[in-house]
Amino acid sequence: MGLDLVLEESPETAVHPLRKDDLHPSLSDPVLDTMTFLNEVTHRFPDAISFAPGRPYDGFFDTEQIFTYLRRYLDHLAAQGATEQDVRTAMYQYGPTAGQIREIVADSLRKDEDIDVPAESIVITVGAQEAMLLVVRALTAGPEDTLLVASPCYVGITGVARLLGVPVTAVEEREDGFSRADLEAAILRERARGRRPRALYVIPDHSNPSGTTMDLPTRHALLEVAERHGILLIEDSPYRRVSPGTPLPTLKSLDRSRRVVHLGSFAKTVFPGARVGFAVADQQVVDDEGRTGLLAVELAKIKSMVTVNTSSLSQAAVAGALLAGDGRLSVLNAEPAAYYGDAMRTTLRALDARLPEARRTALGVRWNEPTGGFFLTVHVPFRADNAALTRSAQEFGVIWTPMTYFYPQGGGHQALRLSTSYLTTADIEEGTERLARFIEAQASAS
Amino acid sequence: MGLDLVLEESPETAVHPLRKDDLHPSLSDPVLDTMTFLNEVTHRFPDAISFAPGRPYDGFFDTEQIFTYLRRYLDHLAAQGATEQDVRTAMYQYGPTAGQIREIVADSLRKDEDIDVPAESIVITVGAQEAMLLVVRALTAGPEDTLLVASPCYVGITGVARLLGVPVTAVEEREDGFSRADLEAAILRERARGRRPRALYVIPDHSNPSGTTMDLPTRHALLEVAERHGILLIEDSPYRRVSPGTPLPTLKSLDRSRRVVHLGSFAKTVFPGARVGFAVADQQVVDDEGRTGLLAVELAKIKSMVTVNTSSLSQAAVAGALLAGDGRLSVLNAEPAAYYGDAMRTTLRALDARLPEARRTALGVRWNEPTGGFFLTVHVPFRADNAALTRSAQEFGVIWTPMTYFYPQGGGHQALRLSTSYLTTADIEEGTERLARFIEAQASAS
Repeated sequence: MGLDLVLEESPETAVHPLRKDDLHPSLSDPVLDTMTFLNEVTHRFPDAISFAPGRPYDGFFDTEQIFTYLRRYLDHLAAQGATEQDVRTAMYQYGPTAGQIREIVADSLRKDEDIDVPAESIVITVGAQEAMLLVVRALTAGPEDTLLVASPCYVGITGVARLLGVPVTAVEEREDGFSRADLEAAILRERARGRRPRALYVIPDHSNPSGTTMDLPTRHALLEVAERHGILLIEDSPYRRVSPGTPLPTLKSLDRSRRVVHLGSFAKTVFPGARVGFAVADQQVVDDEGRTGLLAVELAKIKSMVTVNTSSLSQAAVAGALLAGDGRLSVLNAEPAAYYGDAMRTTLRALDARLPEARRTALGVRWNEPTGGFFLTVHVPFRADNAALTRSAQEFGVIWTPMTYFYPQGGGHQALRLSTSYLTTADIEEGTERLARFIEAQASAS
Repeated sequence: MGLDLVLEESPETAVHPLRKDDLHPSLSDPVLDTMTFLNEVTHRFPDAISFAPGRPYDGFFDTEQIFTYLRRYLDHLAAQGATEQDVRTAMYQYGPTAGQIREIVADSLRKDEDIDVPAESIVITVGAQEAMLLVVRALTAGPEDTLLVASPCYVGITGVARLLGVPVTAVEEREDGFSRADLEAAILRERARGRRPRALYVIPDHSNPSGTTMDLPTRHALLEVAERHGILLIEDSPYRRVSPGTPLPTLKSLDRSRRVVHLGSFAKTVFPGARVGFAVADQQVVDDEGRTGLLAVELAKIKSMVTVNTSSLSQAAVAGALLAGDGRLSVLNAEPAAYYGDAMRTTLRALDARLPEARRTALGVRWNEPTGGFFLTVHVPFRADNAALTRSAQEFGVIWTPMTYFYPQGGGHQALRLSTSYLTTADIEEGTERLARFIEAQASAS
């Protein structure tokens, strides 16, 4: 086959620009467009009060903290007998792929969460987002392997699945909670279709987006279903230590048969810019020749092809913060947790004041009442879509997130997510006032 | 379909542990095992001199530099009029997915590399490794889309392709360099098989692993082939600014038709632990409705599903270093570049002293003579495999990397890679002495 032939065949391929259709299909995922839309609305209406961003409140940050955290970690290395050369290597060189602060994180998990695992079963990641990528990639070997997600669910997990071409099956979280029966039915349906569900992704505590928390019987039921059907549970935990009160036990601390891969994030408990999270993967993996190793080792292999290792500077800052709190995120976050609890209570009280029981029943409006976390769900008697959001921002000066964004297989058309973490009390009061007016107007218009 | 039925069907699925065969096939890539093997050899023979690690020499690092760099960036923000609140947001909050130091990197590219692109066409990544993942993912839409790589090639790019299930086709780099004819032939073969090669990955300057540098006519030829056949060139550039002398122009600076995605890394020029790299992707992307945007925007969308954003702390440290050098990596790295140049020359001179021309010709040994970078290739008259490596480490106290590791489709059986970047002069002298003795012994044994 000669050159001439090909030149005739493909002159048009030399034409610029690139066609979007020629790029990976995950880039045409409507979720990406909706996020862009939300950003545009926020940009177009800068005076609107936004209940959209799931960011930590930054009033607790102080620029000098960075330096304090780093010094604290350097002191720790010195106290452990590190030489100048060791310290330079730790701070500047390529580091171990699985992370250099695993002992410190393992210690924190023991103290805070009653999760007692060896450091070797932990992989430090670039935020929990990278941990999701590693786990989903490791667990899916072929086209029949699928991921189950509690739905509505965090867009990061469905994004990872799309990026990797892994089919996602939604298991709906009902208003009265996640149900064991729904999960088992989903597993059976998947298998009947010749597919192999590998894991279920859940946020048991103060879930993003719904704000719901799984009760203890549900946690035990999930573990039992996972054990019975041979799937893993991917437990994400970003809001546990920034919520008031004592949380229920994690799935991982209840896990007696290594069915749970636990994901953690320091984005809310230390700071988001560090981009440090982790996976606890103490599952045994056995190969054809009977050699065994930890799933964490496999995750680290994948990580070596994604980010090589997590920023040593970021790891040092997070370790410094943990060491400053004697490993207890619960202690380190006592003040923020109280703050977020107040913000949530203020929001719920303000909603109740503006849309009292009788009024909201008449309208067909209701909301859940999380005791912590960053989010709550408001059900409304109209389609909470992009058009409604634009009207809300433009005419009423209040922004929220359409719940539909979080349903990978459709749903949530009449619900919206409010985030309470980033606003001041004054903005919450004014924002709920505006929201109530919008809901009244929109309900009577539809 | 009832529960009972399924319980009968799948009791064995509940059995632990996980089977390796049930994990993603990239985890069974032999390259991962060879890397493990290399690490084990290094661990088993701690007194061996190792020419294996491609790490920067860390004699130039100083712990206090971190603090100086961070302060320098904070001063820069203040000088630009940032308020205390702006600084806290920049350092602690979630940042822009595409990065917060793009202007500073764009400035550096203009000054050092004559690459003049708007900051919007840059995406700051967690090392060049993440940039490879984003680019390969973006460019591959379906199973027919393939990646071409100059072979031997960096394992990070083939790792990314395996992780994403993208077929890789090797285009062999011959001893006299990379050839336009080989590239065109590979493109034609791919198309004849119904596949669509999307891009070619190359390291034009002091390549890892071979150490070769493309001459200027080859650079122009690659651009012409890319233009003619409608593929992109992914240009990686980690060693340009840590090599002595003035490098040849980058492909990107010669690119008149936006055929080049340029990747950069600050691992060698600032420090590896920061994990900061970038992609320059100024290609236009057009969708079905005729809307256009930059490829960089699409890469950032993918990044939002991989790491959300690059550590703000790491970005601040790198920006501080760049600002301290007035944006010129060439100036900032004058001393390291001279050091690495010396190390390479010392290695070549020492090899020549131990295996002079006549002797190496008789043995069938030869090597290339890079003028910079971290690596060179030694061709030997025996199989440079794991068994040979073990003998070399055990009996001669010297470690190197088998070149076969870097051939995605086989090859390089009688070649080894030496890295000269991490060793002291004394170790280079002693190490080459040991290596010469090993080569003599192995050559006479085979």
